[in-house]
Amino acid sequence: MKSLLSATALAVMVLVAAGPSLAETADPLPSWNDGKTKKAIESFVSKVTDKDSPDYVPPADRIAVFDNDGNLWAEKPVYFQLLFAIDRVKALAPEHPEWNDQEPFKSAIAGDLEGVAKSGTAGLAKIVAASHAGMSTSEFAAISKEWLDTAKHPQTGRKYTEMVYRPMLELLDYLRDNDFKTYIVSGGGIEMLRTFSEPVYGIPPSQVVGSSIKTEYEVVDGKPQLTRLPEINFIDDKAGKPIGINQHIGKRPIFASGNSDGDFEMLEWTTAGDGPRFGLLLHHTDADREYAYDRDSHVGRLDKALDQATDRGWTVIDMRSDWKEVFVDVE
Amino acid sequence: MKSLLSATALAVMVLVAAGPSLAETADPLPSWNDGKTKKAIESFVSKVTDKDSPDYVPPADRIAVFDNDGNLWAEKPVYFQLLFAIDRVKALAPEHPEWNDQEPFKSAIAGDLEGVAKSGTAGLAKIVAASHAGMSTSEFAAISKEWLDTAKHPQTGRKYTEMVYRPMLELLDYLRDNDFKTYIVSGGGIEMLRTFSEPVYGIPPSQVVGSSIKTEYEVVDGKPQLTRLPEINFIDDKAGKPIGINQHIGKRPIFASGNSDGDFEMLEWTTAGDGPRFGLLLHHTDADREYAYDRDSHVGRLDKALDQATDRGWTVIDMRSDWKEVFVDVE
Repeated sequence: MKSLLSATALAVMVLVAAGPSLAETADPLPSWNDGKTKKAIESFVSKVTDKDSPDYVPPADRIAVFDNDGNLWAEKPVYFQLLFAIDRVKALAPEHPEWNDQEPFKSAIAGDLEGVAKSGTAGLAKIVAASHAGMSTSEFAAISKEWLDTAKHPQTGRKYTEMVYRPMLELLDYLRDNDFKTYIVSGGGIEMLRTFSEPVYGIPPSQVVGSSIKTEYEVVDGKPQLTRLPEINFIDDKAGKPIGINQHIGKRPIFASGNSDGDFEMLEWTTAGDGPRFGLLLHHTDADREYAYDRDSHVGRLDKALDQATDRGWTVIDMRSDWKEVFVDVE
Repeated sequence: MKSLLSATALAVMVLVAAGPSLAETADPLPSWNDGKTKKAIESFVSKVTDKDSPDYVPPADRIAVFDNDGNLWAEKPVYFQLLFAIDRVKALAPEHPEWNDQEPFKSAIAGDLEGVAKSGTAGLAKIVAASHAGMSTSEFAAISKEWLDTAKHPQTGRKYTEMVYRPMLELLDYLRDNDFKTYIVSGGGIEMLRTFSEPVYGIPPSQVVGSSIKTEYEVVDGKPQLTRLPEINFIDDKAGKPIGINQHIGKRPIFASGNSDGDFEMLEWTTAGDGPRFGLLLHHTDADREYAYDRDSHVGRLDKALDQATDRGWTVIDMRSDWKEVFVDVE
């Protein structure tokens, strides 16, 4: 009887078919204030999805890329992955008594971010090696997930995955509802991002592009594993972003969203393509609800990209005036 | 009137709903002879897609990976990409009179594969650098596509994209019809593969994993481009395959298909995971219709993987007895 439709099945199908007309009347971006930013996003999506428009783009080419830190979730007081690394050093400290006398470990154990910063790139590399390498990829995923499930942001007391911007989640959904494929393209570590990208952003592991350390394939006690090595493989930042995009996606995006000069080349690469393109820059202007920073910030510095946004036709989100809500609700 | 269903739309929906029962009766693998290989593939697909089976796998985890050379298309007399490189050296020779006295260029220009082989890895690196680097990614894609559209296989006179195995195209379709996501994981160059993977295999650029050279982002005459550099970035072969899979896909596949010892680690990694897993090895046993080679071949050597296939529960395709047809039809 498989080929015969029951009355119930028919009813369900009618409801499904009626769905789109209901969806069209609802605001897909309810946390965005009406204004030119929201209008620019909606106009772009309208024209690339309208088969009668000269700017129509087939679904296979509707690629949208999003920076993560300071763009999908917050990045203050420092990148959350650095806070993870410091927490990890603290957790491992009992096994490493020698760290009590060695920088940057001494500062990390004391929770002294300034002290860690003073150790420079070489110090950071030591912390990354100690916290991110020396285990299998599946062990690292478990450690990373455990931290995200339990650790709290030092200023808001929220879990880090609750420091996610609600308007950006709506934008991701809105684009996917219009047959865009959404990607994260982050300077952050690809393996950590993949532990939460699907439940939090609806972005599966295969659509995450990020920085990485090298891995080695080895068989341990008869079981193969990928062991994480203390050696940089790829830095997915600045000019690395178009390279990472090309390597992973193999197509030039038509929509790019970022918030700092680290996203400049990604927006430049995206918007220099033929046909309709959209560059979106999030400007943190809201000291009351989130943070206000740009040219002088040590994380998420936004300077050159802000200066050139108008000339390049990029849309700038003013967080204070464009967003009704900033963060997702805490359950 | 968008929310009201017309009689025509209803009729279409009834036909669509009736579709699966018709499809179930048709053989999804018509170029495969009935026998234990075909049966093993079908049994695996049945159990992982049956919601009532203890071996059920949700669609998001139905990842299938396929080697390319000697697995989706032929690889004799040598990897087709080497033939491309030699043709490219010939095309560029008029601009490089010095090549007439320099190996491996002298042999390449003369079409002397043995001579090229004698120059070893260092010689091959020179040929790859001369043929694959020094242009933008889009220029390389155009060169690669032009060659695939026009060049002919030296023994069959077919275009290279006509040296594709029909039974494997059916297998790719069959898996996709059962909500598998199909990937290429090849030792060949990722950018060349991407120029034909979608039209020939139905596999989009983002689902191609391969070897690569480094690229550099630069702005030339106001236009950004990715310039290909004569420097290896990643070799997606042997132990590199699980590393490439993890880097690009971020999940362990449940189905892996290869034909040589270069695929050993990919099959090992895939089939060592929990739950139902499938390893498939193509054994070239058909000197009449294609080629017969294994342990002593200089390309696609199949030795260790063949020895261990039975113990590891991998299914071995005997090309001669398992395939009714080998190649796709020539239009």
